[in-house]
Amino acid sequence: MFISFEGTEGVGKTTLIRKLHDHFQNLGKNVVLTREPGGTPMAEQIRALLLAVNHDEAMSDDTELLLMYAARAQHLARVILPALAESKIVLCDRFADSSFAYQCAGRGLDRDKLNVLNASFVARIPDITFWLDAPIETGMLRARERGALDRFEQEKAAFFEKVRSGFAEIHQTHPERMKRLDATQTPEHVFQQALSHLQQI
Amino acid sequence: MFISFEGTEGVGKTTLIRKLHDHFQNLGKNVVLTREPGGTPMAEQIRALLLAVNHDEAMSDDTELLLMYAARAQHLARVILPALAESKIVLCDRFADSSFAYQCAGRGLDRDKLNVLNASFVARIPDITFWLDAPIETGMLRARERGALDRFEQEKAAFFEKVRSGFAEIHQTHPERMKRLDATQTPEHVFQQALSHLQQI
Ligand SMILES: Nc1ncnc2c1ncn2[C@@H]1O[C@H](COP(=O)(O)OP(=O)(O)OP(=O)(O)O)[C@@H](O)[C@H]1O
Ligand SMILES: Nc1ncnc2c1ncn2[C@@H]1O[C@H](COP(=O)(O)OP(=O)(O)OP(=O)(O)O)[C@@H](O)[C@H]1O
Ligand SMILES: [Mg+2]
Ligand SMILES: [Mg+2]
Repeated sequence: MFISFEGTEGVGKTTLIRKLHDHFQNLGKNVVLTREPGGTPMAEQIRALLLAVNHDEAMSDDTELLLMYAARAQHLARVILPALAESKIVLCDRFADSSFAYQCAGRGLDRDKLNVLNASFVARIPDITFWLDAPIETGMLRARERGALDRFEQEKAAFFEKVRSGFAEIHQTHPERMKRLDATQTPEHVFQQALSHLQQI
Repeated sequence: MFISFEGTEGVGKTTLIRKLHDHFQNLGKNVVLTREPGGTPMAEQIRALLLAVNHDEAMSDDTELLLMYAARAQHLARVILPALAESKIVLCDRFADSSFAYQCAGRGLDRDKLNVLNASFVARIPDITFWLDAPIETGMLRARERGALDRFEQEKAAFFEKVRSGFAEIHQTHPERMKRLDATQTPEHVFQQALSHLQQI
């Protein structure tokens, strides 16, 4: 089973994924916790390029999208597909829905570009995706304590509003796969929402 | 005018491109000399990932292809398209034909994957491409003096034979754009071959 976790900055994805990881381990399941962009040493190097703040050279939108998919291709080939082939549970902190939300809904990049990349380079999509949804300010407040902001975190609230509406659009078009969790609740309550969805499948 | 230079390792691409660069400059032309993968500081960082020899983690073929196109997208957006918009002559050491020759003909990667990337992410192809063709051993012997071999240079002769036949295939299908130069000749003679093609257009 392949489960992904999506949402804007600071809504609690990593917090929830850790709880579910412990939960599955306590049940004696074989579970892999991973994240995007990244998930292998090489893909983490690509992540570093993606997140680096570079005032001398703006990254083109196409470059950003293609780097995301390069990291994803490596992650799929080396981590996700092998783990699924061994019947492990894969918990992935962000996946292809983030590309739609950030690059297309957020930056306005042509959706066709994303569609061709998904069709050619993403052999497997998640069985279930948890969208942790909360107002942008809620996540911002929660995440505020972290250090220097990366290239995405430096974007303005208007950008993240568009990203959030991107996730909402996926939720509307793929309700069977994407489950919305009310991320304004306590971590324990968010976890219980996720569990009840998992019990249904 | 956008001119690219293609061929297997050590055939003399960089030698020819420098001669043509001097030639155009002596004629008082505005000329930009650049290369792939690379051509901008950010794209050169991607190049470093592509060429690095990593014994712990093999790069998947999809990752390699997508990194190439990420670097190309940045190079097009920041260097090639702006220079062409200012009517400069752009001399590019390798371009998209290398992706076909190395990734598809060489590694056996699905051609459809390359085609969709070209269609969506390469807004401009060269007006003329010089394919410097010579037996694989000729280039190997010429290039031998360089230091440690990068990830591509470490491939075996059989790989480069496939790459060479990839260039031959492009030459057959696009004879109007791609001009074959006999690269077994002296540098001066290769340069004269290129000039005579340029005088025809
Ligand atoms: N439901 C919640 N209620 C209150 N605080 C929360 C909740 N979930 C997480 N937090 C806290 O908010 C902060 C951000 O949480 P977390 O790192 O899990 O978010 P994230 O979605 O993974 O962020 P990012 O997008 O930056 O990776 C952390 O300090 C975490 O402890
Ligand atoms: N026509 C030629 N005859 C003999 N030697 C040559 C010729 N052209 C280049 N050389 C020499 O061969 C070596 C490789 O040439 P060059 O660097 O131009 O090749 P290249 O195609 O750019 O190689 P690479 O693919 O590694 O970038 C250099 O030492 C160069 O001086
Ligand atoms: Mg997180
Ligand atoms: Mg060279």
